[in-house]
Amino acid sequence: MIMRSIWPISATRVSGELQIGGCQATSIAARYGTPIFVLDENDLKSRIEKWSGSFKTIFGENAGDVFYAAKAFISVEVAKMINQGGISLDVCTGGELAVARAAKFPGERIEMHGNNKSEAEIAAAIDYRVGTIVVDSLQEIDRVARIAHEKNRIQSVTLRLNPGVEAHTHEYIATAHEDVKFGFSIATGAAWDALLAATKHESLKVTGVHCHIGSQIFSSEAFSASAIRLLNFMARYKNEFGSELENLNIGGGVGIAYTKKDNPMSADDFLKTVKEVISSESAKLGLKVPRVSIEPGRALIGPSMVTLYRVGTTKEVQLEDGGKRLYVSVDGGMSDNIRTALYGAEYSAEIANRESSANLRDCRLVGKHCETGDIVINSIDLPSDIAPGDLIAVPATGAYGRSMASNYNHVPRPGVISVLDGTARTIVRSETESDLLALDVVESAVRLDDKSSGK
Amino acid sequence: MIMRSIWPISATRVSGELQIGGCQATSIAARYGTPIFVLDENDLKSRIEKWSGSFKTIFGENAGDVFYAAKAFISVEVAKMINQGGISLDVCTGGELAVARAAKFPGERIEMHGNNKSEAEIAAAIDYRVGTIVVDSLQEIDRVARIAHEKNRIQSVTLRLNPGVEAHTHEYIATAHEDVKFGFSIATGAAWDALLAATKHESLKVTGVHCHIGSQIFSSEAFSASAIRLLNFMARYKNEFGSELENLNIGGGVGIAYTKKDNPMSADDFLKTVKEVISSESAKLGLKVPRVSIEPGRALIGPSMVTLYRVGTTKEVQLEDGGKRLYVSVDGGMSDNIRTALYGAEYSAEIANRESSANLRDCRLVGKHCETGDIVINSIDLPSDIAPGDLIAVPATGAYGRSMASNYNHVPRPGVISVLDGTARTIVRSETESDLLALDVVESAVRLDDKSSGK
Repeated sequence: MIMRSIWPISATRVSGELQIGGCQATSIAARYGTPIFVLDENDLKSRIEKWSGSFKTIFGENAGDVFYAAKAFISVEVAKMINQGGISLDVCTGGELAVARAAKFPGERIEMHGNNKSEAEIAAAIDYRVGTIVVDSLQEIDRVARIAHEKNRIQSVTLRLNPGVEAHTHEYIATAHEDVKFGFSIATGAAWDALLAATKHESLKVTGVHCHIGSQIFSSEAFSASAIRLLNFMARYKNEFGSELENLNIGGGVGIAYTKKDNPMSADDFLKTVKEVISSESAKLGLKVPRVSIEPGRALIGPSMVTLYRVGTTKEVQLEDGGKRLYVSVDGGMSDNIRTALYGAEYSAEIANRESSANLRDCRLVGKHCETGDIVINSIDLPSDIAPGDLIAVPATGAYGRSMASNYNHVPRPGVISVLDGTARTIVRSETESDLLALDVVESAVRLDDKSSGK
Repeated sequence: MIMRSIWPISATRVSGELQIGGCQATSIAARYGTPIFVLDENDLKSRIEKWSGSFKTIFGENAGDVFYAAKAFISVEVAKMINQGGISLDVCTGGELAVARAAKFPGERIEMHGNNKSEAEIAAAIDYRVGTIVVDSLQEIDRVARIAHEKNRIQSVTLRLNPGVEAHTHEYIATAHEDVKFGFSIATGAAWDALLAATKHESLKVTGVHCHIGSQIFSSEAFSASAIRLLNFMARYKNEFGSELENLNIGGGVGIAYTKKDNPMSADDFLKTVKEVISSESAKLGLKVPRVSIEPGRALIGPSMVTLYRVGTTKEVQLEDGGKRLYVSVDGGMSDNIRTALYGAEYSAEIANRESSANLRDCRLVGKHCETGDIVINSIDLPSDIAPGDLIAVPATGAYGRSMASNYNHVPRPGVISVLDGTARTIVRSETESDLLALDVVESAVRLDDKSSGK
């Protein structure tokens, strides 16, 4: 059953077969091979419109920005879709910036993250006139200031703060201290020290504050709690500097549905709650309501992609308790989806090439890698007549699937195709055997230095 | 301090600086950039000689094979080193086989693993005349038989059995049933059924049995326990078929030292114990001592490589208990070493560009990725004067480091250089920004099928 909360909007069954973007699963597999990531272009566009539209309706025109978090997934064509959707882009490395540049994404709508940007990355960001650089250490503040100064630029920077709020799914904890690499702690005074350090540089303009409190969050409370802590920091700024910081970026982390158990917030509900809290707290603190930014990545691209695999083998295994489990092996695995092994993530799946009325049975969907932990879905009910040759579609793989893919076991990484109204096009091509060998070089050895004989 | 059990044999300090293969760390970083994997060629060669020599001494000439497990790390140049060392190679995908082929690794010394080999992979293996294919499902037995038949070949196959023994570090459990994707269970009769199925095909020759019981194992007991179960299976074969299976492959999983807490078995001790158990059990069962194979991967390449990073930022974070932790950010992270995040693996590290007499303090070595879990070493004592610009060397990264590397956050994957007697050469080149964009394509959309308007 195609559950609307999990699958892209165009996903349906036609003649029993899964269809996405008007393209039949078997036709996709026949043309592009498996495994393949299938992006429902209309789904992504509609999510961008939804978030962007809701944001404008609730916060007002020009009252802030929706940033797409590139780390979830980025490619040149997707960056173009983001740009066409009129939202902004957050990048966290020179590589992600290079993709944005290749897509001609306007620099002023880019913010650059990262706890350890290289000098080259900072220089590239300043050269591309990115809207803001989110600074994350005292050393980096000096570094950005120096490079901006060398380039005769005044660079807008945002301070990454640590509000002591950490959220995941329905829970959050709020503490004074957080043992993480990101951010300047508000509670310890590190944030204020960083602010003072940044404001001393003439080549920097501190335009706002930022935080990021977690991932796959299903409740707005934690966002509200962290926004309040950041607003109090902004109030202190106003008291001591007499002016106000313009921007409040509450980061990303809005959850999506991977299985029927997940019940994500709607963009409207989430944004309304956050807006109310920010408005009332700003009023209480005597602040103008700041420009507010959010950074969904997973919530935009996650549900828009489906991974299509082909079943290679099935094997029944007898369990210690007398039960039996069917192992279903597909032609990908932890190289294209590490989230199950890495985070214990859960997914759902459907047979894509046909409908089956066979009884359901407990299956474990596994990959082809030489590792016991190479599991796509730990436990899932699938039709008991599932067999080699069947296509399996795993939805909600748009975020942190292809972006974290590896060549483990020298398995080529799958490509991404974009489907729309019955047509398909490759936006990231699948790797080939020769790609796997492309980095192998035969080079003559060179003597490195004279010291080398000095032992 | 350069602990011998953790570092490659040539690692030493010269003028305070870390030197590997006669090359100074700063010279390596200056020429090749960071991060970079540094392979001590003599270390790898000496480990190959050690295992191969011990094996021959203990088991006898031509009494079996040492297979290098390519999944730990493989490249064309490393495959050549393995070949020159005279040992065999285990591959588990078409990609790994392609590397072997590019290195002109002799097919007869290759065995092919995998729970879900594609038809193309099976065909490629048969065409390359691999020594044996390890079969892992009833469907695959039929598949290999059919493809071999089509090619007029009789293919040697090995049955992957599940002895119900699972081992890790110092412990192991032995059960009747194992809930894993690999192998045919001996206890349930699946193994015997698979044997009967395989022996029915004229295009297959069952030459032995195989098992793999775990990873990072520090005791030979589990290997002995599984060998005994496999030998009993071989005895049943003799009873029912009148002839004997030639090969007993006890798999890999021999542990190495990542930190000073780890105390690996010596090759000699390990092989002697296993040899004694196999000899006495074979005698008891009335079997000839079979050819014995082992598959170390990590134990051969793991300690031979060191990752060289550069520190970009440091940040002191106050902890809830009043203590303080120094976060040290390097220019790589979970994209070049996922093992800490994925398995909770532990590593050690040293400042590589200088010696320091500063007091040690508790540090967390983290990467540059936009993720809280991007940790290289969770807790490690490092000199308190560690600062941006310092080089950090993390030893024992040869296995499952570069082989599992990703482009997460569009971070280019580091290359691998081989160092030897003061010289260096690239064997896998570092990726560049243009490599990151090489798979991005702009393609016109094509209509996939007529059904597409049929919803």
